[in-house]
Amino acid sequence: MKIIMDMFGGDNSPEAPLRGAALAASEYGVDILAVGDKAKMEQVCRDGKIDTSRFEFCDAPLVMPVCAEPTEAVKSYKDSSLTTSMRLLAEGRGDAMVGAGSTGAMVVAATLVAKRLHGIKRAALATVLPSLSGQYMLLDLGANVECRPEMLVQFGLMGSIYMDKVMGVKDPKVALINIGADETNGRELQVEAYRLMKTAPYDFIGNIEPRDLPIGGCDVAVADGWTGNVVLKLTEGLGSAFGKMFKAMLTKNAMTKLAALTLHGGINDFKKRLDYTEAGGAPLLGIAKPVIKAHGSSNAKAFKNAVRQAKAFVDGDVNGTIARALADMNTEEADE
Amino acid sequence: MKIIMDMFGGDNSPEAPLRGAALAASEYGVDILAVGDKAKMEQVCRDGKIDTSRFEFCDAPLVMPVCAEPTEAVKSYKDSSLTTSMRLLAEGRGDAMVGAGSTGAMVVAATLVAKRLHGIKRAALATVLPSLSGQYMLLDLGANVECRPEMLVQFGLMGSIYMDKVMGVKDPKVALINIGADETNGRELQVEAYRLMKTAPYDFIGNIEPRDLPIGGCDVAVADGWTGNVVLKLTEGLGSAFGKMFKAMLTKNAMTKLAALTLHGGINDFKKRLDYTEAGGAPLLGIAKPVIKAHGSSNAKAFKNAVRQAKAFVDGDVNGTIARALADMNTEEADE
Repeated sequence: MKIIMDMFGGDNSPEAPLRGAALAASEYGVDILAVGDKAKMEQVCRDGKIDTSRFEFCDAPLVMPVCAEPTEAVKSYKDSSLTTSMRLLAEGRGDAMVGAGSTGAMVVAATLVAKRLHGIKRAALATVLPSLSGQYMLLDLGANVECRPEMLVQFGLMGSIYMDKVMGVKDPKVALINIGADETNGRELQVEAYRLMKTAPYDFIGNIEPRDLPIGGCDVAVADGWTGNVVLKLTEGLGSAFGKMFKAMLTKNAMTKLAALTLHGGINDFKKRLDYTEAGGAPLLGIAKPVIKAHGSSNAKAFKNAVRQAKAFVDGDVNGTIARALADMNTEEADE
Repeated sequence: MKIIMDMFGGDNSPEAPLRGAALAASEYGVDILAVGDKAKMEQVCRDGKIDTSRFEFCDAPLVMPVCAEPTEAVKSYKDSSLTTSMRLLAEGRGDAMVGAGSTGAMVVAATLVAKRLHGIKRAALATVLPSLSGQYMLLDLGANVECRPEMLVQFGLMGSIYMDKVMGVKDPKVALINIGADETNGRELQVEAYRLMKTAPYDFIGNIEPRDLPIGGCDVAVADGWTGNVVLKLTEGLGSAFGKMFKAMLTKNAMTKLAALTLHGGINDFKKRLDYTEAGGAPLLGIAKPVIKAHGSSNAKAFKNAVRQAKAFVDGDVNGTIARALADMNTEEADE
């Protein structure tokens, strides 16, 4: 299996993605197609003693600026490392793509260059968040600020298949994020999406209120990109705020510092549950080939995990399963 | 000052609101107009030895069912304790109203019976949430699931005046909840609201991302009711989830239990910051007279605090200040 990597996205590029790719190559037995400024990549690998035995390099020296308007940027920077990575993916030069470029640019480049899966209306960015009873997948995280009900129905399908094939959750419970439990609650978008999701080919369990997301109760939480982004960012912000309050409490005086030592194991568990970099990156679902968006601040370990995730995305045949499910849905609709 | 109270809203009625009212009457020197089933209220006060020396009773034995559709319920239950309380408020029989009925019914009854402040497009439900650097007011919490930009501009005005006059925050910083920092981020609603808020007569500091809400950075966070409800409920849910994780960590074994004793003071601080019942209720801003919505699960202490809040709402002349600010805005618009 060959993973295409944009080595010039993210805050720590190119060293962190190169080092992460080398770790992943040796640990998971994958080949890497490293895209970016070739001379610079080779220099960094030499200086940093990064093993390139499973690397192939593709020279694309242009770097897309982070601040640019996504659609404009993708059109103006046709030869950037990001756009080139997507073109190589479309040409079948690799099985999946990993990058840490800006979210907007990755979504646009994936959609315009690598293209959507046949029948998918919009690609959705997803991530797995912790809950008291385990974890749940949240999507869309912001690729689509405005959504139509049919898009939410497809998000549920894609999330359900990903949780099954990659995360090993059998018959994932899919819920719609809403501000009430009743099917008449919410905006028009949610009311219509609820109606359509009732007959979708996955285990739709109805609405979930944001209060219940961190408690648990669903395996896939579906939202438009606006709402999903609010949920993701507030979860991150509150996690960080509670962590700081907790730390302040434990470092107050000598007695509390002693108590902190006793709690060491528990505190590490606590931290690990809040550490989203452990999970790898965010899958962009609905593109013709697997794409993983790594955090902008990813270190080598996070990139390694993102490659592991890309491999699982391919191994699980998530896209083939989505395509077959869509074909079945269309056949059923035609039969009705 | 006389506070009108619906004694038959909430899970613990009528005892908790009656007891809370008596505590408030003695502590803050206010009179109470107690609305509901008079015989039952008198019985509960006798049995529970509740001091009724500052109470006046108004008999309204009908209780509005919690599950009913709000607009239908208000129209069908014209003589319910809730609707009667709002009518008494409109008639000037009291200075403010406190109740713990269902949010939807309270908003509809307030709007239809007590009426909006002249010039206000929609009433908004608000609450104060904790942040690392202090606290911030969040509005709207769900009274208006769909909003127009001008409504958000008014929410900012009302929140700013409330924080100044009731919470004592001078020149409150007002921010718009958005999924990016730029004025072009968000849905059409946010882009247009941002443009209008730039010239509004308060200290508009631009967008705030949900990640930064619990950290601090604004005194008033403005959102449509959908988004505000998601932020409120997720904050509550994550607070509860972190509390449970924390408790599990501290009660793991004898050593951690010993550590918990050392942390006692810190843990109490932590709990208090998460205890929204301390704050009282949620002001419904934009109604002709002050209305406080108490939590459905309020106990006597929470009702006492809700009355304290209603008194501060009146004492601060929040409504008079809002009315004057609106008049100024209209004059300026006419001058342009």
